[in-house]
Amino acid sequence: MSVLFDLPQVIFYLDLFGTVVFAITGVLAAAERRLDLFGVIVVGTVTAIGGGTIRDLILGRTPVFWVHDTLYIWLTIGASVLTFVYARWSRLPHRILLIADALGLAVFTVIGAQVAMNLGHPPIISVVTGVMTGVFGGIVRDVLTAEKPLIFQKEIYATAAMLGAVVFVNLSWFLPGSWTTFNNVTAMLVVLAMRLSAIRWHLHLPVFLTIEQYRDHNGPQ
Amino acid sequence: MSVLFDLPQVIFYLDLFGTVVFAITGVLAAAERRLDLFGVIVVGTVTAIGGGTIRDLILGRTPVFWVHDTLYIWLTIGASVLTFVYARWSRLPHRILLIADALGLAVFTVIGAQVAMNLGHPPIISVVTGVMTGVFGGIVRDVLTAEKPLIFQKEIYATAAMLGAVVFVNLSWFLPGSWTTFNNVTAMLVVLAMRLSAIRWHLHLPVFLTIEQYRDHNGPQ
Amino acid sequence: MSVLFDLPQVIFYLDLFGTVVFAITGVLAAAERRLDLFGVIVVGTVTAIGGGTIRDLILGRTPVFWVHDTLYIWLTIGASVLTFVYARWSRLPHRILLIADALGLAVFTVIGAQVAMNLGHPPIISVVTGVMTGVFGGIVRDVLTAEKPLIFQKEIYATAAMLGAVVFVNLSWFLPGSWTTFNNVTAMLVVLAMRLSAIRWHLHLPVFLTIEQYRDHNGPQ
Repeated sequence: MSVLFDLPQVIFYLDLFGTVVFAITGVLAAAERRLDLFGVIVVGTVTAIGGGTIRDLILGRTPVFWVHDTLYIWLTIGASVLTFVYARWSRLPHRILLIADALGLAVFTVIGAQVAMNLGHPPIISVVTGVMTGVFGGIVRDVLTAEKPLIFQKEIYATAAMLGAVVFVNLSWFLPGSWTTFNNVTAMLVVLAMRLSAIRWHLHLPVFLTIEQYRDHNGPQ
Repeated sequence: MSVLFDLPQVIFYLDLFGTVVFAITGVLAAAERRLDLFGVIVVGTVTAIGGGTIRDLILGRTPVFWVHDTLYIWLTIGASVLTFVYARWSRLPHRILLIADALGLAVFTVIGAQVAMNLGHPPIISVVTGVMTGVFGGIVRDVLTAEKPLIFQKEIYATAAMLGAVVFVNLSWFLPGSWTTFNNVTAMLVVLAMRLSAIRWHLHLPVFLTIEQYRDHNGPQ
Repeated sequence: MSVLFDLPQVIFYLDLFGTVVFAITGVLAAAERRLDLFGVIVVGTVTAIGGGTIRDLILGRTPVFWVHDTLYIWLTIGASVLTFVYARWSRLPHRILLIADALGLAVFTVIGAQVAMNLGHPPIISVVTGVMTGVFGGIVRDVLTAEKPLIFQKEIYATAAMLGAVVFVNLSWFLPGSWTTFNNVTAMLVVLAMRLSAIRWHLHLPVFLTIEQYRDHNGPQ
């Protein structure tokens, strides 16, 4: 399959695409907070590169990725400033951004899982770093802007990343190395399909309830 | 004394015990927030391994401890999921958990202080990493779940860790190496005794007041 | 110019000065939260050394700076405790602290930019680490104490750091090495002048508004 296209190259461009999309959605998610221009740049940048930064710190890959390749920082600054300017004049296409964000999540998750795998870490660590890369940027953004953090949101988001990472790790484990492209594409499609389904049909996981809360919720028995 | 039992082995099991307890108490502390299953796993895991993770990052011990030994991650995921399931059917024994949490604090503090000492860092750094290992997991949990953070809570908690770490560092400094077991046990007992006393008699530290707040508090003079 | 004074020595003392000032202003900023003595020490310490710690983690300079030189920790603990005691008896000079804080911001920013430059990183990374060193301690403090974070505050703060870092990086790039003292002093003066002007004339950056918010703000057109 690797003759069809150059996988690392495609992944690299998808990564840049995800970085820009996460910066835009990060800025828009904080729209209620009346940030100034600097705050917008910080929030956009943190959302876009925060997950990969924490992954790199945990794994000891320092200096972290965006110190090596400054393109990421330039892209997040540029995307944040453009969103700042554009949002005042026109409405951004909410639906398209939601789909683009799902694609970003898919790409970041697979890249995060791949990084730990390349360093020879066990499968569970790949799953953890995959999910981290996909969702921790958004969590840090929510903490900074004092929003109800991502981990509370109803619709399935992180779970889509987790499932994609599990699929990726298993495929990489059982299939020969020449199937890399297949593994990457399949895992990304799993994340994408699950996230888009969650948006479409408002899918969510069961919620934690103590027995008292559960009784209040369901009436006395 | 070292013939009585194998200290590293006992510490290791106490560490696993503390990890499970912190995951459970972490999940329960966030019960008000209506987390979904993924949120529960994140909160339980962060509470249990967050302190040790920050300690390892600060000291440059990367990849951090749970990347090397994946047992910790499996334990926190397992404990979080079981708490999720169990809490809906039955009430967890609050009193026993509070005591177990105090024991977890004692173990984590001594382990954290020992880590910096083994690396040859000065005593004050051992105290800082001891307290960090004991309490930062809970602080990160509170920040994630937008709770009033641990550092505000009335009863003595972190101070018990600090005192235990100071005792541990001093004993290790003045006593010969063969007294290691004594040092470990004494320091843990100091944390445990102080924390349990604080719970029993509602002990707390003085609170920060500016002169204006102090006057309001005590009336005009 | 380097005969006039010993630059590294002066920077070192300014760094210690900034550390003490940031610890004091950090504690005072959290005055509303009724922290206990331990909370005061954590908040003062985090404000003073948090920015430099995150910078060191990102750049892979671990163990971080205050593990190498414990003077920083002792100073922040001392300054926090003294503020705790003093604030109950007397009002701290708000105006002088505001100016001292501006000087601290200037010093931290230039030191942060210099660190990345000495490691051979690109100019944009120097600017990022300069701003980080100057402002992230305050952001972490605000997150811990659940205050509206620094990045929302109206008056120019982080932007002063950014401008100073940009000036510093450019001067270092274009001027020969013997002008180091000039570069350092100029960049610090830029931060100081901009921050003091912002305080004096309440300067602030434009605020992020979506088109709907902008219309509400300006009435229908």
